[in-house]
Amino acid sequence: MATIAPQTLTGTPVVPGIAHGPVLLARTEVSEAAIAAFDGSSLTEDDAIARYDEVAAAVSEGFAAKAGRASGAAAEVLTASAGLARDKGLRSAVLKQLRSGDDLLSALQAAVESFVSVFTSMGGLMAERVTDLRDIERRMVARLVGEPEPGVPVPEEPCVLVAADLAPADTAGLDPERVLALVTERGGPTSHTAIIARQLGIPCVVGTSGALDVPGGSRLLVDGTTGVIEIDPDDAEAARRVASDKEERAALESWAGPGQTADGKPVRILANVADGDSARSAVEAPVEGVGLFRTELSFLNAKDEPSVDEQAAIYGEVLGAFHGSGPGDRDRYVVVRTLDAGSDKPLAFANLTDEENPALGVRGLRLAFDNPGLMEHQLDAIAQAAEASGTETWVMAPMVATVAEASEFAGQVHRRGLKAGVMIEVPSAALLAHRMLEVVDFLSIGTNDLTQYTMAADRMATDLAHLTDAWQPAVLQLIAITAEAGRQVDKSVGVCGEAAADPLLACALVGMGITSLSMASAAVRPVGARLGSVTFDQCEEAAEAALAASDPMAAREAVREALDA
Amino acid sequence: MATIAPQTLTGTPVVPGIAHGPVLLARTEVSEAAIAAFDGSSLTEDDAIARYDEVAAAVSEGFAAKAGRASGAAAEVLTASAGLARDKGLRSAVLKQLRSGDDLLSALQAAVESFVSVFTSMGGLMAERVTDLRDIERRMVARLVGEPEPGVPVPEEPCVLVAADLAPADTAGLDPERVLALVTERGGPTSHTAIIARQLGIPCVVGTSGALDVPGGSRLLVDGTTGVIEIDPDDAEAARRVASDKEERAALESWAGPGQTADGKPVRILANVADGDSARSAVEAPVEGVGLFRTELSFLNAKDEPSVDEQAAIYGEVLGAFHGSGPGDRDRYVVVRTLDAGSDKPLAFANLTDEENPALGVRGLRLAFDNPGLMEHQLDAIAQAAEASGTETWVMAPMVATVAEASEFAGQVHRRGLKAGVMIEVPSAALLAHRMLEVVDFLSIGTNDLTQYTMAADRMATDLAHLTDAWQPAVLQLIAITAEAGRQVDKSVGVCGEAAADPLLACALVGMGITSLSMASAAVRPVGARLGSVTFDQCEEAAEAALAASDPMAAREAVREALDA
Repeated sequence: MATIAPQTLTGTPVVPGIAHGPVLLARTEVSEAAIAAFDGSSLTEDDAIARYDEVAAAVSEGFAAKAGRASGAAAEVLTASAGLARDKGLRSAVLKQLRSGDDLLSALQAAVESFVSVFTSMGGLMAERVTDLRDIERRMVARLVGEPEPGVPVPEEPCVLVAADLAPADTAGLDPERVLALVTERGGPTSHTAIIARQLGIPCVVGTSGALDVPGGSRLLVDGTTGVIEIDPDDAEAARRVASDKEERAALESWAGPGQTADGKPVRILANVADGDSARSAVEAPVEGVGLFRTELSFLNAKDEPSVDEQAAIYGEVLGAFHGSGPGDRDRYVVVRTLDAGSDKPLAFANLTDEENPALGVRGLRLAFDNPGLMEHQLDAIAQAAEASGTETWVMAPMVATVAEASEFAGQVHRRGLKAGVMIEVPSAALLAHRMLEVVDFLSIGTNDLTQYTMAADRMATDLAHLTDAWQPAVLQLIAITAEAGRQVDKSVGVCGEAAADPLLACALVGMGITSLSMASAAVRPVGARLGSVTFDQCEEAAEAALAASDPMAAREAVREALDA
Repeated sequence: MATIAPQTLTGTPVVPGIAHGPVLLARTEVSEAAIAAFDGSSLTEDDAIARYDEVAAAVSEGFAAKAGRASGAAAEVLTASAGLARDKGLRSAVLKQLRSGDDLLSALQAAVESFVSVFTSMGGLMAERVTDLRDIERRMVARLVGEPEPGVPVPEEPCVLVAADLAPADTAGLDPERVLALVTERGGPTSHTAIIARQLGIPCVVGTSGALDVPGGSRLLVDGTTGVIEIDPDDAEAARRVASDKEERAALESWAGPGQTADGKPVRILANVADGDSARSAVEAPVEGVGLFRTELSFLNAKDEPSVDEQAAIYGEVLGAFHGSGPGDRDRYVVVRTLDAGSDKPLAFANLTDEENPALGVRGLRLAFDNPGLMEHQLDAIAQAAEASGTETWVMAPMVATVAEASEFAGQVHRRGLKAGVMIEVPSAALLAHRMLEVVDFLSIGTNDLTQYTMAADRMATDLAHLTDAWQPAVLQLIAITAEAGRQVDKSVGVCGEAAADPLLACALVGMGITSLSMASAAVRPVGARLGSVTFDQCEEAAEAALAASDPMAAREAVREALDA
């Protein structure tokens, strides 16, 4: 009897691992058909606003009920959303639109739109509320057109969660015991879905065309290494693959460093941290230090520039956690990145508010053009913390584009007796890597921003997620140019974007000449173990294969082959 | 007696030529000292709003008076500004802010800010009113703090106009008979000031540190080729240099094509056009066709997608103007660019409205991802116009990032029997130029956008103008990579950004292997004549010197030396 091959879908694999379970479809959008069918023109103005009040109350109560079941920051956000849904200003904006002749649906949308632009122009924390406002809008629209509120259902048994894309609000309460894998139709390797899956350590495939058409009741076998999803596979075969993957994953968990290839080529495996708490948690993983300390995250709520002493205290917590030696008795070190404020992380005391394209604006090092004190104070604080802690401290600047910028920054850092480097995230900096290394001690590639600029595609734009993929051939070329520049003068070139957390890509990066990989703690063991299973020759072959490939999927396939050979 | 060298300033030279005359300082900003000295806290709410009404009326009357002296579109804009200054909504927003405790100056600024964000979110023509709104704000603030309204004074004698930077409103009535040269403290080679100076054909130096501190009453000698400005130079020497420059410029005016180096290497000199009118005007210049027909500019006011026949009629006007042969009996051709809608040129029928970073968003070719009909209809219309006119027609797509996009587009164009190419403006496309040429017939480098992405700096951000310069070494590298890819397979690689209009840079581009240069008609003769004065060997030396330079100023100097050798 011939075996019938199960039907398959293919997407972009972002977190490795194999899972098998029933599909659970999450609808995060109101169906367009229901919206098209809605006819609000028959409602009088009084009826329309009464209907609005009814819907707003129901949505608000839903948030309040959820807030009652949550705690801490999540409860606060939900309570705020409950209030926002009943906001009087929003109601009057709707009423004003109704009076100008809009039907109820258009009035709601126009009112939300005007609130969104006001929130956005206010920047900072208010701008962050835009996502909540959009969530409230979706829920109100769903109720208006007679659909249930969209969202992620609570799984009753372990399942594979399938969605168009997942926003932070959708994943807030995700239970890793009940969600075996994540599959989305949109999104790319740096999407919120991918980042959450990596943190939870569950297999994940994004950008999967046709995922939402999977019939309810099917069982899915998800392979987060190849990106292949089988619909209703043979149960015994699926169970065998899940078991074998489980064994492999257990082996990963025992990986204890130090970072090196199977034949002993050392590679520094480092953690990305944001503050003392995350540093104390990261030091539990087998890492040899911190490759990216994002200093701006400590100041998102600060109204005024913190003093040098205040800053030194915060930096000292991170440096203190990494004093001494790590796995393999290698000395630990911490790479501090100066404020990368701006774009999606504006700081009230540093940034301009109304840039047309904030990602291409005055951010990172550029803040020092008009405000050199900001940089001087931060470097003083870092030097003070470095001396107090005794931990080896390197300092790097974000958003460097020219050699003149690198040179001036290196002078400032060297005067304080620390090692100086620059982030490679602007294409210009990658193309000039060899000249940069004439003035700095090390480079660190931020693949997320480098990809965004090289592809001229906003990393947050879900419509362009297929472009914002570090596996794109042009991005790999720029990484290779940068790594080669470091190899020629024997200086350290690290990677600290999402690319470093992808075990396959990590091996190819090492083959290009990358000397350190910095990532979220959850990715440390899978990456370290994968690297320890292949020789440096294999890494070099993987690098060549990746660079020769015509697109991201072909590159992944070619690297897998080179490493499994 | 020793000669005392005159004091000099240096900026970025953007339009060549030498001018000498008295300085005329244009203040376009209200002085910060006056703003700081303003104390509105003593005003009662009633007094404050009365003062606002007074100021708004005065500003409105100023616009109305100017409108009376202007005609056509300029008069319409000025009348609209007169109305906007008296707008009731703006007044109530100010009143609301006053009631919430703001002083008058803060209230005005907050009210304008909220209008700006609403206008911006509306997009299209409303978004274009933001510049006018800012102009109204500056004028009101000036009157509030007791300064005259900022703006460009009307010169009474021929002068050198010096300003911080010039906005479209400042240059609307600029008289080229009275303004000998433009010097600005801010701005870069793609700033509005540079573009206007090029159109008017007057020497221009931008990004000149210290320009605003030139003492009133001084006379300036401006060299738009070197970027050097001498303060109070020797009159006889200045007169000699102006006369010799005048002679040289007269010689340029007699240049009649065809484009080639002194030793006969042909280079196609082409025009950038927007519609039938600009095409009929461009054909008067010694050009061999159109290197960039910006189709989107015909549809900025269209609410719905124009039909294929409507589009074909518009394209036919441009193609018709360039039928037959041009200088040197070379056959003319027209390169049509498909809709480059989005970012700063949104089209109502095509674009999304609320992108976070529109320059990194769904623009150009990317509009076809979700709306393939848009591209198909436009290509049908272009093919129809090409057939009707009999003019050789090439078609290229903007914002291409991957080979897959280029390949799909080329298939669509080839099926209609036309030559297919892509714009090189995304860094990825430049890095993959050799692979792009496996699927398309030609490439055209858009240096303005290529520079913006390579440097990760918004071309409209005046704070970053020193970065958005096509002379930056990384940008030159990407141009050289692209040109070399074309040279290897003997396919056409043109440049159609502002870089092609810079006579010095144009020669270096030809030395890199660029085969055509497309520019505003005003730049055709200076560029063609300069190229005709140097050998191809000199161009190649200039290219090498430019690529080896460490920054834009050094590159300009090195190229000048190579060409004058």
